[in-house]
Amino acid sequence: MMHQVRFVETIRGFLPSAAAIAALLLAAGAANANPLVLRAQGSFFVGGQTIHTDAVSGDAAGPAGGLAGTGNSDDISVNQMYVQYEEPEGTGNHVPVVMLHGCCLSGKTWETTPDGRMGWKEYFVRKHYPVYIPDQVSRARSGFDATTINKVRLGELPASALPDIFTLGHHAAWLVFRFGPAFGTPFSNEQFPIAAADEFGKQVIPDLNAMLPAANPTYANLSGLAIRLKGAVLMGHSESGFFPEQAALVNPTDIRGMISIEGQCPTDLTSEQIDTLAAIPTLVVFGDHLSDVPATAPLWDAIFAGCQQFVQQVKDAGGDITMLHLPDVGIYGNSHMLMQDKNNLQVADLLIKWIRRHVEDLPRGHGQLHTRH
Amino acid sequence: MMHQVRFVETIRGFLPSAAAIAALLLAAGAANANPLVLRAQGSFFVGGQTIHTDAVSGDAAGPAGGLAGTGNSDDISVNQMYVQYEEPEGTGNHVPVVMLHGCCLSGKTWETTPDGRMGWKEYFVRKHYPVYIPDQVSRARSGFDATTINKVRLGELPASALPDIFTLGHHAAWLVFRFGPAFGTPFSNEQFPIAAADEFGKQVIPDLNAMLPAANPTYANLSGLAIRLKGAVLMGHSESGFFPEQAALVNPTDIRGMISIEGQCPTDLTSEQIDTLAAIPTLVVFGDHLSDVPATAPLWDAIFAGCQQFVQQVKDAGGDITMLHLPDVGIYGNSHMLMQDKNNLQVADLLIKWIRRHVEDLPRGHGQLHTRH
Repeated sequence: MMHQVRFVETIRGFLPSAAAIAALLLAAGAANANPLVLRAQGSFFVGGQTIHTDAVSGDAAGPAGGLAGTGNSDDISVNQMYVQYEEPEGTGNHVPVVMLHGCCLSGKTWETTPDGRMGWKEYFVRKHYPVYIPDQVSRARSGFDATTINKVRLGELPASALPDIFTLGHHAAWLVFRFGPAFGTPFSNEQFPIAAADEFGKQVIPDLNAMLPAANPTYANLSGLAIRLKGAVLMGHSESGFFPEQAALVNPTDIRGMISIEGQCPTDLTSEQIDTLAAIPTLVVFGDHLSDVPATAPLWDAIFAGCQQFVQQVKDAGGDITMLHLPDVGIYGNSHMLMQDKNNLQVADLLIKWIRRHVEDLPRGHGQLHTRH
Repeated sequence: MMHQVRFVETIRGFLPSAAAIAALLLAAGAANANPLVLRAQGSFFVGGQTIHTDAVSGDAAGPAGGLAGTGNSDDISVNQMYVQYEEPEGTGNHVPVVMLHGCCLSGKTWETTPDGRMGWKEYFVRKHYPVYIPDQVSRARSGFDATTINKVRLGELPASALPDIFTLGHHAAWLVFRFGPAFGTPFSNEQFPIAAADEFGKQVIPDLNAMLPAANPTYANLSGLAIRLKGAVLMGHSESGFFPEQAALVNPTDIRGMISIEGQCPTDLTSEQIDTLAAIPTLVVFGDHLSDVPATAPLWDAIFAGCQQFVQQVKDAGGDITMLHLPDVGIYGNSHMLMQDKNNLQVADLLIKWIRRHVEDLPRGHGQLHTRH
């Protein structure tokens, strides 16, 4: 603990200076100068069902005016989840880590940061962890079921049947993601690379989760992914912050740890459900400035309070659960997008230390965050 | 080699466990002998503009019922193109290759095949080529502008304003992509791994290109990508088969070669446009069975005839252009998805040989395909 705090203070002392930025760039360059050696890489789908639809397209004649002569009825795949992965050489016994993005975002979340630095995907691989990056069901490369939209176009359903497609614009993202107290104004110690806010805006894509069933298929797919990997740490962020726990409530098999970053914790779990979750080591993570953006402070204060309550519930049930509120360990200025913040690798190190201690090495029941090698 | 985990999982179902363990060890040993060594990897966006919309969501109160207090008006990013890349150690002077997917598909096209084999992305990297994989504008991780759909939901636009969202169902894909003469029936020499047709179906996602302007922003973004890379071979497939040429018509700078796979060639170019294209080495590729699926033979015959005409036009203008119809070089049974066919690496070798001869090494004007190392 002492060692960790000293390390953090040293880094913080450097961060505002130009020399520190140069040092960080040098460090990033040095990291990139070391080749990345992969044992395996690729992509696959988890889950998915075949359904029949009579609106494959929004044209009554069928796709592209009847290209295939099959009309507008056909079978399509729905609810599949795209997963891209990299496995480093020399993983030792490290557990695979699944990183799931949040609202209006995609697997891009974990890749190169908006200002061009290394993201958590590559960093965890360089730390010898196999990394699996899904796109949520109904997002990005996982696709979505366009039947309802097509049927509205064809006049077979009313406009009110359309899903509420949810995008965060640049102003809303600034306030919800806590880049600063007002749009265009960063916090003085802001860790998000706000000079690259426009680049971040390009990552924000439409969220069609509103058209999914109440039991979001991503939950079962995450559970299926953990089983396929014969053990994994599931990490969720924001909208998906609690998806690892939802996956465990579908089937806890092979979910070896859960990391819930800046998500909304549940308040209505049964004691049986709490017991299921308490059997899996859990880390809950929050950044800084939760109460400091006037427009979204009520939202974040409520989410944080809900998670404190959840953590206590799991602790009371004997679970190994840790609340990591970064300012409490001397790390300040982190936004909601802490995997892209300027100190993202420092935060990643804390998560890796937690995985080593709570998932990989030691008996369960240690609820504190320690520095360990 | 790189997909040994999935391969082993597949064969384990058919072998006694001792043999499976032996196979696992063998595969692991082989993989260790052949790691993938990357100099760099990551992702970024090309292009994109910021626009104002008053329908960020389909809820008049704004995203998630007014989460950020910014109402339903905001700025959003549109027309950006997501690009993921891998650069191998030891590229020599090899030119970067950009691989752009077709209709209803995403960058997944070039990754692990539906039956778990190595795709062209990894194969080209292993052959020392930097590889760049975009998602088309309005597709997958590039996102799309949901304003029109949201405005229809809000009653501000009629249902007829909705885009014709185009998905190929399983039957249509079988016929258009030439997996066999009728759904469920493969050609006897079919190269597509039809046992994994269901897995392929999961790659097929909604295509929203109908909502893009006539000058598809992907054209300019591809041109911008070639300039950013200071030289690239642009490869397009199917819907995007002619996108490399469209990019060159926007700006030919740094487009060092064009590979158009199974796309629709233009028939209405000016002589000035033909001259622009004729200055860039071009390879046009088609698989087998163009006339052998009754439902789609007229489509493919017309596309092939149009491309033969295009190739002749460019040749007449002095261009270095090659028509590679695989059966003409003794390679039979290839589907439309030849980058996923069972002989996909054999086909890739032909493309790499063409790049070496026509783009990287020799003076232009050699219109024939040669084997060369």
